[in-house]
Amino acid sequence: MVKEQKTADVSFESLLKIFTVPEGPDSTLTKIDESLSRNLNQFLREHIVAEEKPLREIEKDFSSAQIPEQPEFVSDHTEHLLDTLVSHSVHTSSPSFIGHMTSALPYFLMPLSKIMIALNQNLVKIETSKAFTPLERQVLGMLHRLIYGQSDTFYDQWMHSANHSLGAFCSGGTIANITALWVARNKALRANGSFKGVEKEGLFKAMKHYGYDGLAVLVSERGHYSLKKAADVLGLGQEGLVAVKTDANNRIIVDDLKAKIVELEKKNIKPIAVIGVAGTTETGNVDPLPEIAEVCQAHGCHFHVDAAWGGATLMSNHHRHLLNGVEMADSVTIDAHKQLYIPMGAGMVLFKDPDAMKSIEHHAQYILRKGSKDLGSHTLEGSRSGMAMLVYAAMHIISRPGYELLIDQSIEKARYFADLIKQQDDFELVSEPELCLLTYRYLPPFIREALAKAEGSQKEQLNELINELTQFIQKRQRETGKSFVSRTRLNPDQWQRMNTIVFRVVLANPLTTKEILSSVLDEQREIAKQAPNLMERIQQVVTNIQSS
Amino acid sequence: MVKEQKTADVSFESLLKIFTVPEGPDSTLTKIDESLSRNLNQFLREHIVAEEKPLREIEKDFSSAQIPEQPEFVSDHTEHLLDTLVSHSVHTSSPSFIGHMTSALPYFLMPLSKIMIALNQNLVKIETSKAFTPLERQVLGMLHRLIYGQSDTFYDQWMHSANHSLGAFCSGGTIANITALWVARNKALRANGSFKGVEKEGLFKAMKHYGYDGLAVLVSERGHYSLKKAADVLGLGQEGLVAVKTDANNRIIVDDLKAKIVELEKKNIKPIAVIGVAGTTETGNVDPLPEIAEVCQAHGCHFHVDAAWGGATLMSNHHRHLLNGVEMADSVTIDAHKQLYIPMGAGMVLFKDPDAMKSIEHHAQYILRKGSKDLGSHTLEGSRSGMAMLVYAAMHIISRPGYELLIDQSIEKARYFADLIKQQDDFELVSEPELCLLTYRYLPPFIREALAKAEGSQKEQLNELINELTQFIQKRQRETGKSFVSRTRLNPDQWQRMNTIVFRVVLANPLTTKEILSSVLDEQREIAKQAPNLMERIQQVVTNIQSS
Repeated sequence: MVKEQKTADVSFESLLKIFTVPEGPDSTLTKIDESLSRNLNQFLREHIVAEEKPLREIEKDFSSAQIPEQPEFVSDHTEHLLDTLVSHSVHTSSPSFIGHMTSALPYFLMPLSKIMIALNQNLVKIETSKAFTPLERQVLGMLHRLIYGQSDTFYDQWMHSANHSLGAFCSGGTIANITALWVARNKALRANGSFKGVEKEGLFKAMKHYGYDGLAVLVSERGHYSLKKAADVLGLGQEGLVAVKTDANNRIIVDDLKAKIVELEKKNIKPIAVIGVAGTTETGNVDPLPEIAEVCQAHGCHFHVDAAWGGATLMSNHHRHLLNGVEMADSVTIDAHKQLYIPMGAGMVLFKDPDAMKSIEHHAQYILRKGSKDLGSHTLEGSRSGMAMLVYAAMHIISRPGYELLIDQSIEKARYFADLIKQQDDFELVSEPELCLLTYRYLPPFIREALAKAEGSQKEQLNELINELTQFIQKRQRETGKSFVSRTRLNPDQWQRMNTIVFRVVLANPLTTKEILSSVLDEQREIAKQAPNLMERIQQVVTNIQSS
Repeated sequence: MVKEQKTADVSFESLLKIFTVPEGPDSTLTKIDESLSRNLNQFLREHIVAEEKPLREIEKDFSSAQIPEQPEFVSDHTEHLLDTLVSHSVHTSSPSFIGHMTSALPYFLMPLSKIMIALNQNLVKIETSKAFTPLERQVLGMLHRLIYGQSDTFYDQWMHSANHSLGAFCSGGTIANITALWVARNKALRANGSFKGVEKEGLFKAMKHYGYDGLAVLVSERGHYSLKKAADVLGLGQEGLVAVKTDANNRIIVDDLKAKIVELEKKNIKPIAVIGVAGTTETGNVDPLPEIAEVCQAHGCHFHVDAAWGGATLMSNHHRHLLNGVEMADSVTIDAHKQLYIPMGAGMVLFKDPDAMKSIEHHAQYILRKGSKDLGSHTLEGSRSGMAMLVYAAMHIISRPGYELLIDQSIEKARYFADLIKQQDDFELVSEPELCLLTYRYLPPFIREALAKAEGSQKEQLNELINELTQFIQKRQRETGKSFVSRTRLNPDQWQRMNTIVFRVVLANPLTTKEILSSVLDEQREIAKQAPNLMERIQQVVTNIQSS
């Protein structure tokens, strides 16, 4: 807050200054800038408060809807931001923050981001981005080649072609998935005879023209929640997103997929796309892509792979076989802000066929004129920043073999942690890691045995209490601020598909050590002791089960 | 490119280094980082090549689709980026770059952006953003209050409410507009009786349930091109976007709007929304918002205002009357990366009614649980960065009166430039500035007189040649790199709505001086002399006209 005695003045001269004169070398902001450059991790450790402040308390600092009538000095406001915002932000790059898909980032991306922001290019058109446009096209080409491995001739021909597009850069995986399904929908309901196509005449007329009673997109029940949004936005309705059963390893059951398609076709509902998941958000499993591709071919529907998380695995020659079949997909989503270690806001969708995006192409008078190479004619978004530069730089500085090492060590670390959990008699591994994700829970032997023995409502009662315990541990651990795992709900085969709350761990941060993994378990064990009432209730139910 | 003799090695140790050890104080990247902080404008002037290199030439530097197999040293790659990318990027913040909506940015945003990127928060959920969530809600509250001016009690009640939302932060105006129309569509086709709503059952069933033959969104023929995308994505079809006629000042003709709605309703087509434009992209005009609001009320349709560009005008007590009626809108789009001087990627949509976004709300197991304050349950996008922090800081450091000054000087500058153009006998002002946009063209008296006198095909022939000249001047000026104006096509009343190519100028950069404006005209006059062949052809047609 501005102190009474020193208030910044509002004059055009003072305003011009903020556009032309940088902060002085002794200013608070310059010092922070330098300390970030010198030692980012130290800065974050020193400025982010570990112990969680309740959200309601934090909200008090952000309670006024009034735009200030009085300017603040940059230094004062920076102090204010450090105290109220930075201190209560989340240390997402901490090696012990293993609950979500954020990680430490390579150092060089910080100054490069500053260059990107200082250049403030707008990638919607060449006139406001020039060299950034071919750069973005090249990055898309590189990802395309990583997935589809076409020949040099192919990329020479299409990568910079004004009327073609190998994909689109997006703010994230959600927009990437929507873009893919948008293309799939428009392809399924394309111009035909007197019908001008769904993009022109809309969905209602398209359905009448083609004589369908409905449209469907099929995905495993472990598909990302954003696909429901996509189905809603695109006019299919959330019910148009059909969930296919998964096996014990959270992979789509191909027979169920086939059966569901037949069932839909019987009802005159057109399946416009099947989505294969390459790295489920909750457990990191990969669907059997070649089999799905076959089904799609047989039924003439678009095959999309949501590899937002797992796509980076293709960088590793040791593990890329896990995504076998991805090259048969019509489109693929990859998030560079996940396992390519780029800051938030770098999603991509790639299309096998350089003509695929024709069905969503658009033009305007003042920009995106026909024949121009403006990227904006093939993106859902309009104005966009030059994020592609960060992906480009990381590809060159880390290189393919560097990414391979990062991917390999993440997967190895997950296997190590899975083994470690199995060695503990009071923890249960719920899902085995395929990529670098796994789930588990705290389950001491006496509870485990009782749960195995119990039946009917007693079993459910005990299971509910275990869920409560898992939730308690996860929440308390987060609040304490030493480490963080996330939680989700699964229906594991080994527990007759009961609703099971589990800890979820993502091991992509290269700075996470084996010692940290051990101490996460130790801490959870300790926290369990801090719930005596809950443990007593569990004990009671266990006693009942044993005596029944 | 990596030189043969020095190649970076690929080992896990060297990789860990890039995550933990910053670039040294003497490294190229650190030096750039510092020189950006010291004098951004100088850095840009020194590193961006003024004269335009042909795109085909630039593409040669971005031609390989192969992800490098060999890592590059950070310094080497930084040099490479300076040579190939930065040097051929666009100096969007240059005071003489007055062709698009980019401007110089306040200095303090550079180090703040670095903090934002270093923190790498993900605003989709509290667990990865904590204090950033209430901060973003506050920023949305501030914009909401700027538009709708509700009471403190209103914001106390709704701003931080878990089950409500005053709007959404987006990557840009396109996503903001799509979000608004998504809400409008879902509201128009909401659950009713046994029908579960378009979000659940899809558009086809919704249309059958409600018995409509079509849906429409109405906007002036000067509406932004992205609305066509929105109509396509949402299943209305581009033909569902109905263009309403505009008057001589590029404002929607309310009588035509009314007539179009009646016409649509006769055809059993439901108008789900009317869009008022508050700052057309091409000419900066504002539609008569109160009259549109009345029409919307009479027909029970959603009233959206696209104020992506003009919304910031509300900051000025002297000019906010230009947007009178915006407070009657159900939703409003504002881009902070336009006249709020924030870097690319800060769009917003605000909803009058805190319940409005209910129809697009979504939840999932592992995040966005019901009752949580996770922002992701009300956004089209998923993972998002902490851009809201930059808007927050700018609001506090610049303050409302500071923004007022910026807005006021932009509008004054546009009026000054309009007067200057009118004083030249060889230029014609085509559209008067209402905000800080105007359009004009080079039209020496002898051509102007001939064009006025000519009729029929002669008139069209001459007009086409003038268009060619305008295009030539604009392109050559851009290529020369001293200054930049954009161009578009209008149909001005004063020239019988002939297709007229014009220079388009946006005067939002506070560093643009009156001298620069004069020199832009001087340069254009000079360039016209460099097209002797074209001028000769014009002269010939003029002679023919004079003698006929």
